[in-house]
Amino acid sequence: MSARRRKRRPPPRRSPAELDQITIDQIEGVARNVHQTIRGLEAPRLTFPVRSLSNVSYNKEVGYFEIEDSVSERTLTVNTAKSFAQTLLMMQLARTHIRTDERATKREAYYISKNWGGDTEFKGQPESDTVLDDVEAMFARFGVTREQLRFTAETHGGSVAGRLLILENDRDTGEEQIIDCTKFGSGSYTVPKDVEPLRFETDAKFILCIETGGTFDRLHRAKFWDKHKCILIEMSGVPSRMCRRFVRRLSDDLDLPVFAFTDCDPYGFANIYRTLKVGSGNAAHINQFFCVPRTSFLGVTPQDIVDFKLPTHPLKDVDIKRANDAKKNDPFFKAHPAWMKAFNQMLKSGQRAEQQAFAQHGLKFVYETYLPQKLADTKRFLP
Amino acid sequence: MSARRRKRRPPPRRSPAELDQITIDQIEGVARNVHQTIRGLEAPRLTFPVRSLSNVSYNKEVGYFEIEDSVSERTLTVNTAKSFAQTLLMMQLARTHIRTDERATKREAYYISKNWGGDTEFKGQPESDTVLDDVEAMFARFGVTREQLRFTAETHGGSVAGRLLILENDRDTGEEQIIDCTKFGSGSYTVPKDVEPLRFETDAKFILCIETGGTFDRLHRAKFWDKHKCILIEMSGVPSRMCRRFVRRLSDDLDLPVFAFTDCDPYGFANIYRTLKVGSGNAAHINQFFCVPRTSFLGVTPQDIVDFKLPTHPLKDVDIKRANDAKKNDPFFKAHPAWMKAFNQMLKSGQRAEQQAFAQHGLKFVYETYLPQKLADTKRFLP
Repeated sequence: MSARRRKRRPPPRRSPAELDQITIDQIEGVARNVHQTIRGLEAPRLTFPVRSLSNVSYNKEVGYFEIEDSVSERTLTVNTAKSFAQTLLMMQLARTHIRTDERATKREAYYISKNWGGDTEFKGQPESDTVLDDVEAMFARFGVTREQLRFTAETHGGSVAGRLLILENDRDTGEEQIIDCTKFGSGSYTVPKDVEPLRFETDAKFILCIETGGTFDRLHRAKFWDKHKCILIEMSGVPSRMCRRFVRRLSDDLDLPVFAFTDCDPYGFANIYRTLKVGSGNAAHINQFFCVPRTSFLGVTPQDIVDFKLPTHPLKDVDIKRANDAKKNDPFFKAHPAWMKAFNQMLKSGQRAEQQAFAQHGLKFVYETYLPQKLADTKRFLP
Repeated sequence: MSARRRKRRPPPRRSPAELDQITIDQIEGVARNVHQTIRGLEAPRLTFPVRSLSNVSYNKEVGYFEIEDSVSERTLTVNTAKSFAQTLLMMQLARTHIRTDERATKREAYYISKNWGGDTEFKGQPESDTVLDDVEAMFARFGVTREQLRFTAETHGGSVAGRLLILENDRDTGEEQIIDCTKFGSGSYTVPKDVEPLRFETDAKFILCIETGGTFDRLHRAKFWDKHKCILIEMSGVPSRMCRRFVRRLSDDLDLPVFAFTDCDPYGFANIYRTLKVGSGNAAHINQFFCVPRTSFLGVTPQDIVDFKLPTHPLKDVDIKRANDAKKNDPFFKAHPAWMKAFNQMLKSGQRAEQQAFAQHGLKFVYETYLPQKLADTKRFLP
């Protein structure tokens, strides 16, 4: 039952040590630039890309929301002195943590700032988070993520089960650990806060990303991953950054397609699926790392409700608003007629349905009938 | 680094098959009683314990909120016919799932009810959840939990890292799987939806239950579990049923003390810690299985704020209300003068502090200084 080592690709990625050096070089480059400008008796500037849906573009070939050229500048003046200093101190903190091989949560970064002295203390975490987002956006164009700057979130990274070996070197001994995701019994593997050091091997044919813990558990318990040679991921709603990065790395390194399995409602389409596949507007500066363009939508679709006679609930006002908003404003859905059609079918029927609605046909229906029928023709999945 | 098999106790617990048989016997016993009453031309009755803080008692020797004798009765009349039938159908569903070795989430149970026909369909999940809670409460006095009735929740069961071997037989092959929680690299083990089939071995000296993912990650990364021979549990706020049950089983089977490590605020004390240790009022019928009386409170305490010079935030109105409510109405805190003193100290200072506040003294402070100092004298932990 062990995931055999069929697909092993030579690691095309940079080593953690190389990434750390690149990050330090970029931080020092920006700092040196500020320093030299000041020595030239000019006012130093920092530039950040604007992070909003108005500053992204979507191109099917690229596959994710790309950030456009709008930037905001912060020039050192009397008014900006505090936030300018905070930005540089945050960059310094990142460099320190890379050198000492530590990392801090965003909350801890806020507490550490209390030692900075002078006028640089943050009034609250929203203030420090904003500076952190700016710093991340500033370095994203150099290919550096917040995690590489050693700042992590509190969020849970999702659960994993199935035909996957995760390889990771022990931080102290350097010894390679092999984590076999077929060997956790009814339990599963929790994605850590930094997935960059992980390497993967598998004989799986695809990755299945599942919205709810209940459905993940049902498929895991039935060893769906063994019969259908796949890797199961529990997203628990909108996938966290680390969950998306983990799936992206799996998809890239193992050359595997990703299928999404969510509820049939505008939240499942426009929040969960859209974020997984192409990213989001306010995080556009990191979509190149954190979204999974190779994802397609297995279900539940509005047509599945008809084909599989699923029990439904009426759309709520918030559902209708979200669906119309997606149709009108979301560059991703607007680029895909199949999605516009799906939204229209949903709005016309006035109904939504959940993954767990398959239970009405018996608890085995979802893995013995629905998923095998859908997987027989993956080309028909929504884009 | 493997958790050596020092503590192996013969399983004093019933096997899953025995538990299933007991559960079926109890279900059939209740059903037979109803049936015979009807054949005797009398109106059948079902009785349920009242689930509220007014119907619990706390005795330090017992160690958890015990349910008292107040019961509500449901006698079959024209008015109760529907809920009476739904209760029996839910019992039947439980028996079916035990026989077919399946289980359903509470959400799925609601969908399955749509096939029951007649007038028995639930209008929404709150209705089916209430019946499910009644059924659980009815059988709790026989030592049967909702999980043994094969109904599970959606909630995540917490993450585990450290010196623990989990033993579980494969459902299909019967083969024993050994899951070594020291071998997950930077990842961790996710507690499954049913922990009853698990067995444990360890050489750990204690279990440390941690409120936040950030602090769990920091201790895991530093291999705190290796240096201090322990098992780390990430609760992510108020621990879920499965997290509590998992810790309880660890504590019982391995004969280990449990230490809680939360923020220093009324939510950390009265919601997270109190629920972990003695349970809650509206779930009083299951506290005997789902709370961990051997837990004591490591910190963060109001005195720690003073002793370790922690940065604080002012108590919010909701904090003050919660603290006063706990002092006045909570049988657990009222029974422990040390806790009353801690609440008074907090209210007098008007300050709260977080686990992550230790970051101000450097990121290693929490595991190199604070925790070792506290663990040197566990007798001083709050009860």
